[in-house]
Amino acid sequence: MNHPDSTNGTDGRLRLTKHHGAGNDFLVLVDTEGGAALDPVLVRSACDRRFGVGADGVIRVTRGAGSADLGMELRNADGGVAEMSGNGMRCLAQAAVEAGLVPPTSFTVQTLAGVKSVEYHPGATAGAAEASVDMGPATLGPAQPGALPGHPACLVDMGNPHLVVVVPDVDEVDMDEVGPRLQRDHPDGINVECIAIGPGSDAITLRVWERGVGETLACGSGSAAAAAAAHQWGLVGARVAVHNPGGTLFVQLSPDGIRLEGPVRKVASLELDPAQLLAAARP
Amino acid sequence: MNHPDSTNGTDGRLRLTKHHGAGNDFLVLVDTEGGAALDPVLVRSACDRRFGVGADGVIRVTRGAGSADLGMELRNADGGVAEMSGNGMRCLAQAAVEAGLVPPTSFTVQTLAGVKSVEYHPGATAGAAEASVDMGPATLGPAQPGALPGHPACLVDMGNPHLVVVVPDVDEVDMDEVGPRLQRDHPDGINVECIAIGPGSDAITLRVWERGVGETLACGSGSAAAAAAAHQWGLVGARVAVHNPGGTLFVQLSPDGIRLEGPVRKVASLELDPAQLLAAARP
Repeated sequence: MNHPDSTNGTDGRLRLTKHHGAGNDFLVLVDTEGGAALDPVLVRSACDRRFGVGADGVIRVTRGAGSADLGMELRNADGGVAEMSGNGMRCLAQAAVEAGLVPPTSFTVQTLAGVKSVEYHPGATAGAAEASVDMGPATLGPAQPGALPGHPACLVDMGNPHLVVVVPDVDEVDMDEVGPRLQRDHPDGINVECIAIGPGSDAITLRVWERGVGETLACGSGSAAAAAAAHQWGLVGARVAVHNPGGTLFVQLSPDGIRLEGPVRKVASLELDPAQLLAAARP
Repeated sequence: MNHPDSTNGTDGRLRLTKHHGAGNDFLVLVDTEGGAALDPVLVRSACDRRFGVGADGVIRVTRGAGSADLGMELRNADGGVAEMSGNGMRCLAQAAVEAGLVPPTSFTVQTLAGVKSVEYHPGATAGAAEASVDMGPATLGPAQPGALPGHPACLVDMGNPHLVVVVPDVDEVDMDEVGPRLQRDHPDGINVECIAIGPGSDAITLRVWERGVGETLACGSGSAAAAAAAHQWGLVGARVAVHNPGGTLFVQLSPDGIRLEGPVRKVASLELDPAQLLAAARP
């Protein structure tokens, strides 16, 4: 289990590691053989928090694809394909470095949203590290004065759609009411970030309601979108601490694009028997 | 990882297996050396569904204690000691048999609630089994006509306290409102089971609100309490199918006590580094 890459695929069992970035948790499968793609039913079973292991998604990482050092396949807990995840990429980085697939500190990953650069710095404590990932540019859309009347709001496109709203105190927002209500004008759904400025300078506090999921502990693209909007409004500088409920992420804004930085933690090594997992699935 | 008993404790890492009974999930540590007791902080970290692995509790199973074949230590997700858990015992049985600690099909386990007899029958599919456990007697208390006016209700003592209420349709009950409201007259809290009779004969459908937890997918002692009350009211026979949201459990009522039977599933094998797990814990 210490070197999942040396064993995966030889006996039908899957060796994975579980990681989280600010509470956004992923199972990572290091696949050096470039074996089978992730099965959506298996992903759904593995991510089930009661009848499976539990995670927000499963990532399969392979050796170099095209010009990139690594390739990635990401499926969300519902089994569906996802293009990219900032926190997922940071979890991938930890698994790939620990398995010896790439050396730290800098490498590239081919994703469905293009080639992304990743930096990974192991920490002093075992299993604790810092990682950053290129999130691409933020495209700021029009103001949305009608979203929560009296509160600054705008659309942000991070490859996925976001609606960022400034409120005086995020703790007083009823996200379970606000999140679904603000979907109404967006037929494909939208991620809703309610933010407050501070504490401290160049910092925002965020709560996020992810489309199709609900309120989550952390959102990488949501943090980037919120920082970009707050910067445009002149509320913060170019390096922004984004206090997510699950931990603090840092967003670095530059003309080249946005970098998402923050802690990543290894939780456990796992071995799954696909037949057993399917037999254990939710009735 | 296939034989956790052969490795636990030699390198500071913990080998556990994850199992569930009707969606009630437990991490089981097979401890043949009779090593250290479960650390409550470590249990809380491991059971955290975002920052840890995720489970309703952790069970440490040891070789014979006194006259029993096995000993058990159980801590709930909050780190607190629990006396017994019907579904937890059934998960323990699978881990102990798979690790070779006891042969199927019949053995005894020393718990804080006394020595319990367990039966375990491996299924045809890997990781799938049936297990039953002695739940001790149910002591039926007074009727509680004021609980939900117009609905039969009574107290049941299974070692822990239960309030069983009959309703026409469990799907129409707002458990998040009813559960907390029915606590009010019980200073130490109470487990609330809303049951409907059927479908079919000798069957009940159950939803359960566990004190200190909220609504859960299955509850062993709640199923036993509900079956005992329904039997006393003449609504079912002595063998009762209890349809929990997470799956069907069977309750066998007899003068010797109550047996809880049902499926148990193995989900995964895990390896945890305690230092890593603590470094990954919720901020």
